[in-house]
Amino acid sequence: MAAEAEVENKQVILKHYINDGVPKQTDLELRVTKIELKVPPKGSGAILLKNLYLSCDPYMHRRMRDFHGSYIHPFLPSQVIEGFGVSKVIHSDHPNFKPGDFISGLTGWEEYSLIHKTDKLRKIEPDDDIPLSFNVGLLGMPGFTAYAGFYEVCSPRKGDYVYISAASGAVGQLVGQLAKLHGCYVVGSAGSKEKVDILKNKLGFDEAFNYKEESDLDAALKRYFPEGIDIYFENVGGDMLDAALLNMRVHGRIAVCGMVSQQSLSSPKGIHNLLNLITKRIRMQGFLQSDYLHLYPRFLEHVASNYKQGKILYVEDMNEGLESAPAAFAGLFHGKNVGKQVIRVAHD
Amino acid sequence: MAAEAEVENKQVILKHYINDGVPKQTDLELRVTKIELKVPPKGSGAILLKNLYLSCDPYMHRRMRDFHGSYIHPFLPSQVIEGFGVSKVIHSDHPNFKPGDFISGLTGWEEYSLIHKTDKLRKIEPDDDIPLSFNVGLLGMPGFTAYAGFYEVCSPRKGDYVYISAASGAVGQLVGQLAKLHGCYVVGSAGSKEKVDILKNKLGFDEAFNYKEESDLDAALKRYFPEGIDIYFENVGGDMLDAALLNMRVHGRIAVCGMVSQQSLSSPKGIHNLLNLITKRIRMQGFLQSDYLHLYPRFLEHVASNYKQGKILYVEDMNEGLESAPAAFAGLFHGKNVGKQVIRVAHD
Repeated sequence: MAAEAEVENKQVILKHYINDGVPKQTDLELRVTKIELKVPPKGSGAILLKNLYLSCDPYMHRRMRDFHGSYIHPFLPSQVIEGFGVSKVIHSDHPNFKPGDFISGLTGWEEYSLIHKTDKLRKIEPDDDIPLSFNVGLLGMPGFTAYAGFYEVCSPRKGDYVYISAASGAVGQLVGQLAKLHGCYVVGSAGSKEKVDILKNKLGFDEAFNYKEESDLDAALKRYFPEGIDIYFENVGGDMLDAALLNMRVHGRIAVCGMVSQQSLSSPKGIHNLLNLITKRIRMQGFLQSDYLHLYPRFLEHVASNYKQGKILYVEDMNEGLESAPAAFAGLFHGKNVGKQVIRVAHD
Repeated sequence: MAAEAEVENKQVILKHYINDGVPKQTDLELRVTKIELKVPPKGSGAILLKNLYLSCDPYMHRRMRDFHGSYIHPFLPSQVIEGFGVSKVIHSDHPNFKPGDFISGLTGWEEYSLIHKTDKLRKIEPDDDIPLSFNVGLLGMPGFTAYAGFYEVCSPRKGDYVYISAASGAVGQLVGQLAKLHGCYVVGSAGSKEKVDILKNKLGFDEAFNYKEESDLDAALKRYFPEGIDIYFENVGGDMLDAALLNMRVHGRIAVCGMVSQQSLSSPKGIHNLLNLITKRIRMQGFLQSDYLHLYPRFLEHVASNYKQGKILYVEDMNEGLESAPAAFAGLFHGKNVGKQVIRVAHD
C-alpha cells in the first residue's frame, strides 16, 4: 500500500441540523475527498485508520441537532459524522498502535480516518470465533448498554417478570438473553412478524408480540403479564411507557435506556401514569453505559464466553458499502433494521 | 367516667365515593350515634379509645375512591372514615393496653373508637417537651415519610442542591430541615406569601418562592438553582415536575412522595420531559413510608432529639372540634392549611 500518494476517501456528511422529525436519508450526503495515507510528521501521535465496520446507533440522532447542552456535542453541518467502528491501523505515529492492529471506538463515517485523539480507541484481538463486526454490537456500546442496564440498573432477581420494548434491536436482544440466563421470564415487543419470530424462535424469549398489531397496549401487557411486570427495559417511551406503568408490580424497576419514539419529537408525548410510581414504589432510572466503563472488562469476558458456548446469539443487519449508510441510518427510525444495524465499509 | 351507659359519639362519615375532582367539604358528613364506653366481653382483645387528635392527610383521598386495586382498601360510603390519630385508652380487654395509656395509629374519625385490631397501634409515652399532637405529624407518618424519603430515597450528600415542592406541608417542612442539617442548600416552593415567609424566616430554608406568582416555573427554578438541582423532593406533580426535570443535574434524584396536583384528576396531566432521565441519568423513585418501618425507632430518636435541641421546628395548623374536620380535610386540596393540618377532637 502506497502511503505517499493521495487516494479517494468517501465520506458521509451531515447536510444540515435536523431539528424536527426523524432523520431522513437525505439529511446525510456522500462526498468524495482525497486523503494521504500517512500520519503527520513525528510527534503528532496520530494514527491513520482504514474503517471496516461502522455502527448505526439511534443516539447519533442527538448529535444531529443544533443543541449544545447535552452530554455529547453535536456534529457540524458539512462535516463528516462520527460513530463507533471497527478499523485497521495502516499508519501510526503512536507508540501503542502499529500498522495491522485492529481497533474499536469512535471513528469517522468514511473509508479512511486520520485520528489525533486516540484515548477513546480500544485495541482488539481478532478472535476466529467471534465476527469482527461484533465489536460495535454484542461486544461494543450496545452490548455493554444491555449489560450495564440489566445488571446495574434493573436489580434483577431469578424469577422476575421482564418486559423489553424494541426487543430485537441492538440492545434489547441482549437484555432478553441476559435475563433468560439469569432465570427471568422474558417477553419482548417489536414491530414486525419477522422480528417477533426471531425473538421467540431464535433468541429464546418466552413470549413476544408485534406492538403494531395491538390496539390496546395495556390489554396486551395484561395478556402477557397477568402477574405484572417486575422489570421494564424501556427503549421506546410514549404510549408504551404509559401502558407499562399500569402493569408494573410493587417495587418494580424501569431502566430507561432510550425513548426512540419520542426523541424525534420537538414536544414529546405526555406520560400520564406516573402516579403508579408512588402506589407501587417503582424506581425509574435513566442511564448511559459510559457511567459504567469500569465494568467493561467483566462484561467482555461474560458475554464473549457465553457467546462461544452458544448460550448467547446476536443478530446483525449488515449493509454493504458506505453508500448504503444514509439509508441504513434513517431506517433505524422506522424499524427497518432487523437486529443490530452495521455498515461494512471494507473487507479486511 | 361511666363505662356502662351509652354516650353520644360524633362521627365523620364518607357520604359517597369521590371519583372525580378534589374532595369537598360536602363529601363528608357529621353524624351523631351512640356508643357504650366499654369493650366486648373477655377474650375480644378490643380496646376503647377516646380520640384526642386526628390527622388530615392527602393520601386519605385515595381511600375515598371506588378503586380496590391500590395498596390500601377504600373507605365505605356511609361509614366512619379512619386516619392517623392520638388517642387515650379508656377501656381495654387487651393485655398490652390499659386505661390511661396514650396510643398513636389508625383510629376512627369520631369521638370514641372501639378497636378490635390493635396491631397498627403504637403506645406512646407523653413527653412534656413535645406536644402530644406531634405524634401524627413530626413524629408520625408525615415526619417518617420525610425521614425515609430523604435518607433512604434521595441519597443526600453534603452540598447537594435540594428542591422541595409543597415545602411548608406536613412532610416538606421536615425534609427541608433535615436537608439543612445534612449540609445541603435548600429551596422550597409553596402557595402563599405567609408560607414562603415561614420557610425562609422560621424553618431556615435558604430560599423559598410562591409558585403561584411564577408564570414560568422553568425560569423560576433556573433563578433559584443556576447550578441545577441534585435532589427534587416531589410532592405535587404536573407542570412542576416537568420544570424540575429540565433543571436536574447529572445523576440527580427525584423522590416521588406525592403528586397532589394530579391525584384528583381522572386523567392526570402529561409529563413531557422524561428524556432528561436518560441524558442526565436521573433516578426517579416512588416510595411509601410503610416500606421502611424498621427505621422507625431510629427516626424517632433522631427527630425527637433534634427537636428538643431546638434544631428542628414543626408548624401545625390546629382546628378545634370534629365539626371542623370536613372543611379542614377539603382545605388540604386548596392549600388552605399552613403546616401540618390536625383536628383537636378533645382536650386530654
